[in-house]
Amino acid sequence: MPKPSIPQGTRDFSATVVRKRNYIFSVIKNVFELYGFEPLETPAMENLETLLGKYGEEGDKLIYRILDSGNSFSEDFYLELINNGIWDIMKNTQNELKKDEEHLTKVSKKLHGFEIDGEITNPILIAKKASELSRSFPKLKSTVSGKALKYDLTIPFARYVAMNHTKLTFPFRRYQIQPVWRADRPQRGRYREFTQCDADVVGSTSLLNEVELANIYHDVFTQLGFTNYELRINSRKILAALAESCGGADKMMDITISIDKLDKIGIDKVKEELQQRGLDDAQVAIIDQYLNIDGSNDDKLAAVNSLLSGSAMAAKGIEELKYVADLAKNTNLVIDLTLARGLNYYTGMIFEAKAPQEVNMGSIGGGGRYDDLTGLFGVPNIPGVGISFGVDRIYDVMEELNLFPEVLQVGSKALFFNMGEKESAFAFGIMQQLRSKGIACELYHEETKIAKQFSYAEKKSIPFAIIIGSREMADNNCQVKNLATGEQQTLSFEKLADLFNNSRSV
Amino acid sequence: MPKPSIPQGTRDFSATVVRKRNYIFSVIKNVFELYGFEPLETPAMENLETLLGKYGEEGDKLIYRILDSGNSFSEDFYLELINNGIWDIMKNTQNELKKDEEHLTKVSKKLHGFEIDGEITNPILIAKKASELSRSFPKLKSTVSGKALKYDLTIPFARYVAMNHTKLTFPFRRYQIQPVWRADRPQRGRYREFTQCDADVVGSTSLLNEVELANIYHDVFTQLGFTNYELRINSRKILAALAESCGGADKMMDITISIDKLDKIGIDKVKEELQQRGLDDAQVAIIDQYLNIDGSNDDKLAAVNSLLSGSAMAAKGIEELKYVADLAKNTNLVIDLTLARGLNYYTGMIFEAKAPQEVNMGSIGGGGRYDDLTGLFGVPNIPGVGISFGVDRIYDVMEELNLFPEVLQVGSKALFFNMGEKESAFAFGIMQQLRSKGIACELYHEETKIAKQFSYAEKKSIPFAIIIGSREMADNNCQVKNLATGEQQTLSFEKLADLFNNSRSV
Repeated sequence: MPKPSIPQGTRDFSATVVRKRNYIFSVIKNVFELYGFEPLETPAMENLETLLGKYGEEGDKLIYRILDSGNSFSEDFYLELINNGIWDIMKNTQNELKKDEEHLTKVSKKLHGFEIDGEITNPILIAKKASELSRSFPKLKSTVSGKALKYDLTIPFARYVAMNHTKLTFPFRRYQIQPVWRADRPQRGRYREFTQCDADVVGSTSLLNEVELANIYHDVFTQLGFTNYELRINSRKILAALAESCGGADKMMDITISIDKLDKIGIDKVKEELQQRGLDDAQVAIIDQYLNIDGSNDDKLAAVNSLLSGSAMAAKGIEELKYVADLAKNTNLVIDLTLARGLNYYTGMIFEAKAPQEVNMGSIGGGGRYDDLTGLFGVPNIPGVGISFGVDRIYDVMEELNLFPEVLQVGSKALFFNMGEKESAFAFGIMQQLRSKGIACELYHEETKIAKQFSYAEKKSIPFAIIIGSREMADNNCQVKNLATGEQQTLSFEKLADLFNNSRSV
Repeated sequence: MPKPSIPQGTRDFSATVVRKRNYIFSVIKNVFELYGFEPLETPAMENLETLLGKYGEEGDKLIYRILDSGNSFSEDFYLELINNGIWDIMKNTQNELKKDEEHLTKVSKKLHGFEIDGEITNPILIAKKASELSRSFPKLKSTVSGKALKYDLTIPFARYVAMNHTKLTFPFRRYQIQPVWRADRPQRGRYREFTQCDADVVGSTSLLNEVELANIYHDVFTQLGFTNYELRINSRKILAALAESCGGADKMMDITISIDKLDKIGIDKVKEELQQRGLDDAQVAIIDQYLNIDGSNDDKLAAVNSLLSGSAMAAKGIEELKYVADLAKNTNLVIDLTLARGLNYYTGMIFEAKAPQEVNMGSIGGGGRYDDLTGLFGVPNIPGVGISFGVDRIYDVMEELNLFPEVLQVGSKALFFNMGEKESAFAFGIMQQLRSKGIACELYHEETKIAKQFSYAEKKSIPFAIIIGSREMADNNCQVKNLATGEQQTLSFEKLADLFNNSRSV
């Protein structure tokens, strides 16, 4: 029997980890609700056509498709195979087979191990060639799969709004905390199944939304104990103006993709890439100047204003950044003109949250404003803005900075020891009284050595041992041992509940 | 553009529904934790081999497989096709083609629309035949899919215990609340994606576990407001003894499958089915007698004791039922000798929770004891017992009996009206003070008619409207309107927080 395992890039979460993750989720959820966001949950499975084409060509490849149910493959699948090349393999094979009628019978009987004049009649070779060929069948996979696992929370949200827009109350604020799946190559900090936490407002163009989202980042990070996180903001309007000053709007994509790599490859490589993408020296010089803008938030806005003077688009972007930076000055907000964010649907303000500098973790959240996400689903003109928290990275930062409260890890508050059949049946009744008061506790169910019961309590971090032997039964009391301090006391059953702080773990 | 939709049998959960579902989850979770159970989460995706063969032949068909990533299909896939019959299609086609060399060129060029002597050379017909044939290729689907969505929480739990048994503290109590997926035909109350809530203890044979699980059902249902639910219990040991008295252990499966249908088809049809399954008249008569046992719990145990007297197995089952019924007599526990539960892995006590009789909903939970679930994954001898809650049905029962607390549906406690640009920027500051005190509230971001803002508050069930116009700004106070009563008062900003009960919604 093979050793049991789980798919690469997926994880089991033990109690310790679940409690820490739930702590992060509950902080985020409570802040979202504080700001008037309402929960939404969408299915793990979406129709394939809802997702395809929304994440670029690379993204499409990372979508997990779900095989249609039933045992067989559809006619469309075989037609696709035939139309794409299996037919050719058949023809080649058959031409070869015609050369040697005798072999034909053997091949069709034995189904293995043949070669005729070096040509493919060997099923294994045919299979190999067929597999190679099928790499270039663009529609093949969709003939066996009409559903897929969701890749993010944004597109399913847009699909939901488009489906329900006549029933929703706008501005519609929703938050969503759910897993998503990507067939990415797993590596440190990157998983194939991970949880996203998103908040979006749609149906409102007010910049107060951006101000509130900046405050949500601030409240969440402050509550989690991140004192020196950074919230970087920029405007896609300024980037669009920059593109126009470099030869036109069609340069926008080239410029944002290149700038996006600045942190990783440095300014010289970015300039090289821009040249490769067809920008001339003068254009690259403008971008060089742009990327070198530095100073306070106000300094930066003044510098970009003079660099892109004359562009109404730039002026608008600058005005918006200034408005948000002023109203959200209580947050750790930094204007970062080099922030680009690859996603095409952003049209206004963009956000990126950076982990505290003492940990080398990079982005722990991001988002931005979009004009027309639901337009993808036939319902245009619903502008919106949203942000996302990167929970797995936040978790790693919390671990590295030792920020998880210790109290999270207490499950049961007490273990009733098993001192024999009669005693444990009696203890069971006492325990049920404690539970009815909301105090989580356990009875060791098996009759076994006291040492083993102590060891069980220790491994589960249970703070108190409660011992009821025959003498205690007669005296109507119990021995209570604090397992951290070793302190022991005799308590009446009435006083037992007072021992426990009624606060429950998260 | 096609109208956006979601896959059949899946659901979007709006805020109203999420809050109600979370209420049920939190009641169940709190009770699980009260009884010392710890959380576990396993991935949505499991390796296909972990799941296959664990749910019977019918179950295997209902497992959602995930297509391997990448664009192509594997060599194994094509080899499987060739080995199973595509080869035959090729041969047939080619034999036909040989008859008419001239057509061959046309066929391979045009790839459509041919028939020669009524035989298949038309790609569409070949595709059809190939699809038909592939129905009987048992291994075909696993060559394109190494992963699958989990079908229940029990097998992934067994896989987890087998993988981690050297690190776990036994007895190991875990609870798990996660979605599962089944490619079942959707119908009322049956979904393709739904959430299970399980609690299991492994590594303990003590019947106190069964007593506690009965109490967990009782605590959860009582807290949810189900006064007259029923918890039916039986023992697979008694059923095994019954099978032995009817000709041997190999009849166990036939008998349990037939008895399991009693509720649906009635006793006469069950007897018919037993005869069809090869039981003789005398054997059917014993089962008839068994199924007709009635009365109090004690009456039933006495009757079955006399019917199966002489069987040590029956005596053991009866003793165990009596022990649990005695210790859990505070619960709505009923011994139901006709309870069978189809699942093969149950070996001891079995449970089924029935919805309150006034709603016609049937089973809302179930479970039982198993001797060796992890043995499926190469780690034998870890006995266990577990239960499950059927959340979707519980939800429907709660709706029908109107048991959800109304307070669940309050999100934001107050809406600050937008009375102009300056006023709303001012109100924003006041609102942030309220939020810093944990009071969820919103500001209407767009400048618009007052009537529209009232309507927004009403649709979102926001209880208070807070109005800060220029006069209020000057006077340092605000108008507060209770939207349920219409009552309006003037409050200073300092007093504003006192207006709200600090309790947060679930």
